[in-house]
Amino acid sequence: MSVSQYQRIIIGIDPGTNLMGYGVVGVNGKKVEVITLGVIQLNRFEDHYLRLRRIFERVTALVDQYKPDEMALEAPFFGKNVQSMLKLGRAQGVAMAAALERDVPIAEYEPRKVKQAITGTGGASKEQVREMLRRTLNLSDVTLEGLPLDATDALAVAMCHYYEITRPAAAPRKGGGSWADFVKHNPDRVK
Amino acid sequence: MSVSQYQRIIIGIDPGTNLMGYGVVGVNGKKVEVITLGVIQLNRFEDHYLRLRRIFERVTALVDQYKPDEMALEAPFFGKNVQSMLKLGRAQGVAMAAALERDVPIAEYEPRKVKQAITGTGGASKEQVREMLRRTLNLSDVTLEGLPLDATDALAVAMCHYYEITRPAAAPRKGGGSWADFVKHNPDRVK
Repeated sequence: MSVSQYQRIIIGIDPGTNLMGYGVVGVNGKKVEVITLGVIQLNRFEDHYLRLRRIFERVTALVDQYKPDEMALEAPFFGKNVQSMLKLGRAQGVAMAAALERDVPIAEYEPRKVKQAITGTGGASKEQVREMLRRTLNLSDVTLEGLPLDATDALAVAMCHYYEITRPAAAPRKGGGSWADFVKHNPDRVK
Repeated sequence: MSVSQYQRIIIGIDPGTNLMGYGVVGVNGKKVEVITLGVIQLNRFEDHYLRLRRIFERVTALVDQYKPDEMALEAPFFGKNVQSMLKLGRAQGVAMAAALERDVPIAEYEPRKVKQAITGTGGASKEQVREMLRRTLNLSDVTLEGLPLDATDALAVAMCHYYEITRPAAAPRKGGGSWADFVKHNPDRVK
């Protein structure tokens, strides 16, 4: 399947330091198709740097292969402690570097926002998110079998971004979905 | 000055989201020379992503130009709050990605450890660190004039790494200074 057949391609990333989920969707008008989804296995590397390197290499490869127009990142803004946030920040940083190096704009969504966009409720479980995506995107049992929830979480953030840039807004928005747009609409969330 | 004249080149990085300091030293036996030092200006970019991109591009350029054998990173393991640690983690992550992409091993040092290595006391001020570096490395007033303390901080972490890999250890160490070595000697600090 050639990626050039789509008007817009979005890669969703759910960064983590054990497993990193990814999901790529192609958009044609109101039609959305899953191009690929999966996880980057990190837990077999004990070395923290090897994990970061693996994230950078795999995300770079995904960007090169699927040439996404945008990257949507699931990004919690609150965490349990400073240590885990530092580690998460590093994982996000290397994934972002892979996108920024290729001029791919980034948008971020908090987990609650993603769940809300997919299921209608911010407190939905990962299983509910997966089930809704299965129905919306006609995912087969074969596709989903054995796939960690991190993969469907990543697909969810890609779909959340798709909904965000295509939903009718109260006021017309220009160039919606770009990171400039994200910054403009969320001045308190970026600095 | 050609970088090939040195036995070993170390780049020190002091990551920040407003200013990122860097310092490159060249080692020949017991002789250490400053090859370059400076800061990457980030505060003129309002956009968080443009800052991260700038870090990635500039660190990549430094790595390509000076071909360091190792990167030494000043890395606080504790911060005021989860938000600032997430931002710091991202800045560290993109700098690390630039090194990892070019197979440059990374070593991390806490600020206290760096100050201890340079001045002999972990509670030293940035000005004291600069003054000690000025004497040790014969830095001229012209070099230091108007240079933010972030630059000498970065030079300090490069020198801290140099001392770490060259000091006589209680037991002989093999391949000291590589990230594998860092991991081996600091199993609790990386995961």
